[in-house]
Amino acid sequence: MKNAVKELIAKGMAAKAASRKLGYLSTEVKNRALENIAADLRARTKEILAANKLDLKAASTNGINETMQDRLLLNAARLEAIAKDVLNIAALPDPVGEMLDTRTMPNGLLIGKKRVPLGVIGAMYESRPNVTIDISALCIKSGNAVILRGGKEAFHSNLMLAELVQAACDRAGMPAGAVQFVDNTDRELVGEMLKLSEYIDLIIPRGTETFIKFVKENAKMGVVAGGIGVCHTYVDASADMDKAVNIVFNAKVQKPSVCNALDTVLVHRAIAEDYLPLAAKELAKAGVELHCDKDSLKILKPEKGLKLKAAVKEDWGKEFLALTAAIKIVDSLDEALEHIAVYGSGHSEAIITEDYTSGMRFLNEVDAACVYVNASTRFTDGGQFGLGAEVGISTQKMHARGPMGLKELTTYKWLIFGSGQARP
Amino acid sequence: MKNAVKELIAKGMAAKAASRKLGYLSTEVKNRALENIAADLRARTKEILAANKLDLKAASTNGINETMQDRLLLNAARLEAIAKDVLNIAALPDPVGEMLDTRTMPNGLLIGKKRVPLGVIGAMYESRPNVTIDISALCIKSGNAVILRGGKEAFHSNLMLAELVQAACDRAGMPAGAVQFVDNTDRELVGEMLKLSEYIDLIIPRGTETFIKFVKENAKMGVVAGGIGVCHTYVDASADMDKAVNIVFNAKVQKPSVCNALDTVLVHRAIAEDYLPLAAKELAKAGVELHCDKDSLKILKPEKGLKLKAAVKEDWGKEFLALTAAIKIVDSLDEALEHIAVYGSGHSEAIITEDYTSGMRFLNEVDAACVYVNASTRFTDGGQFGLGAEVGISTQKMHARGPMGLKELTTYKWLIFGSGQARP
Repeated sequence: MKNAVKELIAKGMAAKAASRKLGYLSTEVKNRALENIAADLRARTKEILAANKLDLKAASTNGINETMQDRLLLNAARLEAIAKDVLNIAALPDPVGEMLDTRTMPNGLLIGKKRVPLGVIGAMYESRPNVTIDISALCIKSGNAVILRGGKEAFHSNLMLAELVQAACDRAGMPAGAVQFVDNTDRELVGEMLKLSEYIDLIIPRGTETFIKFVKENAKMGVVAGGIGVCHTYVDASADMDKAVNIVFNAKVQKPSVCNALDTVLVHRAIAEDYLPLAAKELAKAGVELHCDKDSLKILKPEKGLKLKAAVKEDWGKEFLALTAAIKIVDSLDEALEHIAVYGSGHSEAIITEDYTSGMRFLNEVDAACVYVNASTRFTDGGQFGLGAEVGISTQKMHARGPMGLKELTTYKWLIFGSGQARP
Repeated sequence: MKNAVKELIAKGMAAKAASRKLGYLSTEVKNRALENIAADLRARTKEILAANKLDLKAASTNGINETMQDRLLLNAARLEAIAKDVLNIAALPDPVGEMLDTRTMPNGLLIGKKRVPLGVIGAMYESRPNVTIDISALCIKSGNAVILRGGKEAFHSNLMLAELVQAACDRAGMPAGAVQFVDNTDRELVGEMLKLSEYIDLIIPRGTETFIKFVKENAKMGVVAGGIGVCHTYVDASADMDKAVNIVFNAKVQKPSVCNALDTVLVHRAIAEDYLPLAAKELAKAGVELHCDKDSLKILKPEKGLKLKAAVKEDWGKEFLALTAAIKIVDSLDEALEHIAVYGSGHSEAIITEDYTSGMRFLNEVDAACVYVNASTRFTDGGQFGLGAEVGISTQKMHARGPMGLKELTTYKWLIFGSGQARP
C-alpha cells in the first residue's frame, strides 16, 4: 500500500505540473490530441478488443451478471461510436479563454474574469470502459489534467484505453502527464486519493449511491456528484390527457435505468379518475409495476391485468431505476410542491398542466436542477440541452447544477491590467 | 447541549421553509427590508450602543487587547456607515431571476438557466458586529435565508442587531424565519451546525486560519472560504522604478492587516541593485521590517537605518498581516512563477513590468483568484471590482473565485418550457 500511495502522489504531482501548462494551451493542440484519440480507437480496434476480452473472461469466471457484462463489453460498433463522440467534443467551442464582465474602472484599471480550467480532475468510476475515453476527452478539451481511477472489472480495457489516450496526447504535443491512470484498483487507494487536495482540485465520482456518499464525506477537495435522481411528474387538474399519458410513459419507460427517469407520479384528485386508468393501461403495455397509495388503489382495479401493489412508506423518495413507479393522489398543487420538496433529490421535476399560473408556480417554487412544464424529465442531459457532451449531472447547488458540460469543468480568474495604480 | 442542538435544528428548519418563498420574492419587498434596516440603525442608535457597551465592558474585564476592542466598538459614525452600506446594497441590481443561455431547441423545448438563490447560508464569524448587518443585507438582497453565528465577544451587539434585522424584515413583509440568529455561543455548537446539510446549503466561515480549516474539514455542506492571502509582487527586470516602488509600498503599507496586502517581494536580479535600496528606503518610512534572502541582504546595508533581518524558511509562504515583508531575488520570470506556484495561496499576485510578453505570461501562468500587471494587490475587493459589496474573498476554485458579491450567493436552475415533448 505504501508504494501504491507513493505512486499515486507522483501521479498527482505530474498532473499538477501538466495542468500549469494546460491552462493556456492552444485549442489547436487540444483538438489534435482528440483527433489522434479518435484515429487510434479506429486503428487499434483489435488490440482494444483483445484487452476487453480479458475483462469479459474474468467477469464470466466471477459470475458477474449479464447486464454488468454488457456494460463492460466493447465491440467495433461501440468503439466507432466512442470515436465519434470524441470528434464531437473536438468540434465544440473551447470554453477556455472567454472573458466575462470585462470593464474599465474609473481609476483606469481594466479588469475582467478569464475562464480557465479547474486544474486537476480526479475521476472515479465503475465498469463502463468508455468513461475512460469520455472523461479524458472532456478534460483535454477543457484544459484540465485528469487522474483516472476506473473499476477493477474493466481494468484491462481501461489500462489499454488510457495508454492509447496518453500516446495520442504525446503525439499532439500536449504537456507530459496531462492524463494519469491509476493502475492499482485496490479499494483503499480511493480513500488515499481523496486526501490529495494539494494535487487534485475536483473529484467527480460515478457509481452507486453508497460510493458517492463515501466520496462526498471523505474528500478533502471539491466534489461534484450527481447521478441520483428521484424524479416526480405532477399531473395537474388541468392537464391535457394525451400529453399527461405520453410524457409519463416516456419518462418512465424510455430508459428506466437512468437518473432522469420518472419515479413517482403525483396526480391531482380532480383528474385522477379519468387519468389513472388511461395512464396505467399504457404503462402496463411496457410491464410497469405501480406502487399505489390508498386512493389511487381504489381507482385502479387489479382485474384489468395491471401490476398493482400498495405503496409502502419507502416508495416515496425512492429511485427505482427499473420499470416501477409510485403513484400518489394529491389534493392540490401545493400538496404536490410539498411532496416534491420533501422527497425530491433536486434532479428533475415536471408538471403537466394547461393552466398558466400552475405552470409558472411550479417553475418558481420547485428547487431542482431542472424543472419542466409539459415535457419528459428524460431530457435532462448535456446533449439534449445543447451542451454537446456531459461529464455528469450535478444535483448540488454549488459550482454547477444539472448537466455538466465543458464550461462546468472550468473556473475563472480575475485579470487586472494596470498602469501603476495604488489604492487610495 | 441537547437542547441547544434541538433549537439549532428548529432554526435550520425555519430558515429552509423561508428560503422556499425567498427564491421568488419581489425585489421591492427585499429592498423595503433593507431600507427598514437602515432606518432602524439610525433610529435605534442609543439601544445598539448600550448593547455594544456590554460587550466592550466584558472585553475590558477579560483583558482583551485594544485592537480587538476597537474591532468590537460601535459608535454613531460607524452605525451611520453601516446604514449607508445597507442602502448601497438596496441600490444594487437584484441578481435573482436573470435568465442565462436561453434558447429554443430543435424539438421546440424552450430552455434556459434562471439565476436563483443558493437557499440557506450559514455565516460563522468573529468579533466585528457589523458583519451581522453586512451578511444579513447581502443574503436578503440575494434571496437567501441566513443563519448567523457570531462570536462570543460581540454577543450582545450581535443579538441586538439580529433582532433589529428580524423586525425590519417582518415589517417589510419578508417570509418569517428568513434571518436566524444562534444565541448560544458554545464552541461545540459550531460542529453541530456543520452537520446540518439538510437545512444549510453553504457555510461561509470568517476568522482565523485554524477556524476556517476546521470548518472546511468538518462541514457536510459546501463551504466557500477565503481570507487567507499570501500575496507576491514580482518586480521584473524591465519594471518602471516609480511604479515598482509605489505599488509595493501601497500593497504593503496601505492596510497591512488584510488578506490582499503584500507578503513577499520577488525582485529580478538585473534590477535588484537599483530597485531594492529605493524600495527599502520608502518602506522604512512606514516602519516596515524586511526579511531578506542572502542576496538581497548583500545589497541592503543595515547602516541605512532599515529594519533588516535574514529571512528564514518559514518566511516564504507566510501571511504576515503586519508591517513585515519578505524579499527574495530571482534570476528570471520563470523562477518567480515557480516561487508563486509553490508558496502562493491563490489569492492575489502582481507583476511590475514594462515588458509586454512578461506581463502576458504572468497573467496566463499564475493560478490565483486575481492576477495583476502594474497595480497593487490591495484592489482585490468587491467594492473596488465594481461588485458593490462582498461577502468575502474566495481562494478556492469551485463556485466562486475572488471577491464574492451578490451574484456569487446564487446558483441557477434549468427551466424547460415544453408542449408535450417526449424523448425519442
